[in-house]
Amino acid sequence: MSGNREIHLASRPQGWPTAENFRLVTTDVPTAADGQLVVRNLVMSVDPYMRGRMNDVKSYVPPFRLDAPLDGGAVGEVVESRADGFAPGDVVLHGLGWREYALLDAKAARKVDPTLAPVGAYLGVLGLTGLTAYAGLLEVGGMRAGETVFVSAAAGSVGSLVGQIAKLKGAARVVGSAGSPAKVERLRELGFDAAFDYHDAPVRDSLRAAAPDGIDVYFDNVGGDHLEAAIGALRPHGRAAICGMIAQYNDSEPPAAPRNLALVIGKQLTLRGFLVNSHNHLRDQFVTEMSGWLRDGRLHHDETVVDGIENAPEAFLGLLRGQNLGKMLVRL
Amino acid sequence: MSGNREIHLASRPQGWPTAENFRLVTTDVPTAADGQLVVRNLVMSVDPYMRGRMNDVKSYVPPFRLDAPLDGGAVGEVVESRADGFAPGDVVLHGLGWREYALLDAKAARKVDPTLAPVGAYLGVLGLTGLTAYAGLLEVGGMRAGETVFVSAAAGSVGSLVGQIAKLKGAARVVGSAGSPAKVERLRELGFDAAFDYHDAPVRDSLRAAAPDGIDVYFDNVGGDHLEAAIGALRPHGRAAICGMIAQYNDSEPPAAPRNLALVIGKQLTLRGFLVNSHNHLRDQFVTEMSGWLRDGRLHHDETVVDGIENAPEAFLGLLRGQNLGKMLVRL
Repeated sequence: MSGNREIHLASRPQGWPTAENFRLVTTDVPTAADGQLVVRNLVMSVDPYMRGRMNDVKSYVPPFRLDAPLDGGAVGEVVESRADGFAPGDVVLHGLGWREYALLDAKAARKVDPTLAPVGAYLGVLGLTGLTAYAGLLEVGGMRAGETVFVSAAAGSVGSLVGQIAKLKGAARVVGSAGSPAKVERLRELGFDAAFDYHDAPVRDSLRAAAPDGIDVYFDNVGGDHLEAAIGALRPHGRAAICGMIAQYNDSEPPAAPRNLALVIGKQLTLRGFLVNSHNHLRDQFVTEMSGWLRDGRLHHDETVVDGIENAPEAFLGLLRGQNLGKMLVRL
Repeated sequence: MSGNREIHLASRPQGWPTAENFRLVTTDVPTAADGQLVVRNLVMSVDPYMRGRMNDVKSYVPPFRLDAPLDGGAVGEVVESRADGFAPGDVVLHGLGWREYALLDAKAARKVDPTLAPVGAYLGVLGLTGLTAYAGLLEVGGMRAGETVFVSAAAGSVGSLVGQIAKLKGAARVVGSAGSPAKVERLRELGFDAAFDYHDAPVRDSLRAAAPDGIDVYFDNVGGDHLEAAIGALRPHGRAAICGMIAQYNDSEPPAAPRNLALVIGKQLTLRGFLVNSHNHLRDQFVTEMSGWLRDGRLHHDETVVDGIENAPEAFLGLLRGQNLGKMLVRL
């Protein structure tokens, strides 16, 4: 049997990561002990939050270890099972990506049905990505029909779903920001009422033009000047669901914070950070609703797919530079 | 009858206000038209939010007009009534302070019972000040028994009530910050578990020493470095009830914003600004509970009283400089 290739963290990035922070390592294919599975990975996810785990700081998930494989969401096929309920050929969702073969406890794997949707969907629209959009918009942001919604990084995997779910749930107006003319065009195709390229003008000005009467909900993937512009545009009792601050992940300097934060008082705004794992109680409702919209062709999900584990670091770097449209996946 | 003295806004302050921004003006005592009352004010309130109204900017309350009397909470005695239900001698709460005689529509006045509490209490502990503390801590901050609470400007009228209500509602630990050793001492007398003078050390360090296991609720009267320290100390699912940002009211520069705002994501924090007038539905419960605690001697409220309308500007300036202990009132 050929070896198992995996990507290790070779060094911790200072500021923007580079290819030199990663190392391709070949090891033996593992064998299962009692209660374990060996899974040949088919597809893995690269996500912005992984940048934070490359720093050696305490956070909501532990940092990646140096000289060890990275990890993250993946779907693969069971090739060896020493656990009840799993057999070779089963397709499972689990958390040990960044490697061709994963050795895992069976209780850390969840079977998925590859006939219902392409396996990559379980890492995206029907997985944590989709639940992040759904829970953040509806539960954290509390969006109600008739409201105006603004989402940043709107052509990304989460953002593009946020905008579409908002429209499907009756938002009066949905505005998105993105980082290229092609992405802006894609947002219009996806049904956004307005979209702008944040390079074109100060975000505050672009947002005011796109939502002259203000906004009710802001779904934040970016932080920085986007958050400041949103605080300025939010109407009384508005809410910001804060999912990410990608603008700040690679800053060595303390990040720029919104200078207009005092507006939260007079406008009675709520800014709420969230993690998807606090919203698992929505999962059944989410899967039912989202799979229905997918089946009816009312919900679209973009994927950018890169082939080969050796290209996973470049896929991740491209994600941070905004080179993806929708969910960024690596096919192994 | 002698004249009616009132305080006008002579010019809009740039940065810190000074005595020159105010003017004492003598006018005629007004007379009531149908449906109106003339009230001789007994006591008036000066409050930090009035600083914001001195700027010519759109906010949640309209700006004060130049060359016209300021306004704000006051209690006075009806001296002329041309409205049903009011008679000379009635004591009423209304919004036209900063003048010796107020002319107002009867529907803008609310009768209070001067035998139940000193009339100043209706501007403080049993009025909007008390409701601000009560609603902000319990409804906006969602404090539950067993939690740790931090309040800034804790020797002020709102802050001193926040800390005491927290203890009465079962907080495990209550920490306050204030601006002088005498105020810190007063917080200890009021039952705060820990208190510090924010001049002594960076707020972050003082707060860490006072609440080494972190905090669950932050009641913000200050903004700036206090808010940043609180965001750092808040535990997962912690809440900040943002009532004021007095540190920033007199800044001509854009205010310093918390540089650690991205922590709201991983810790799933909620920052919520509020205005007391959105919480009037709590008024009955508030009055019942607060007056019970007052009667039992379990709730203390400090007042700093200045005599004479000619000294109202100085009382306001002293408030901004932190020279008050508890509620700042002017007796007319």
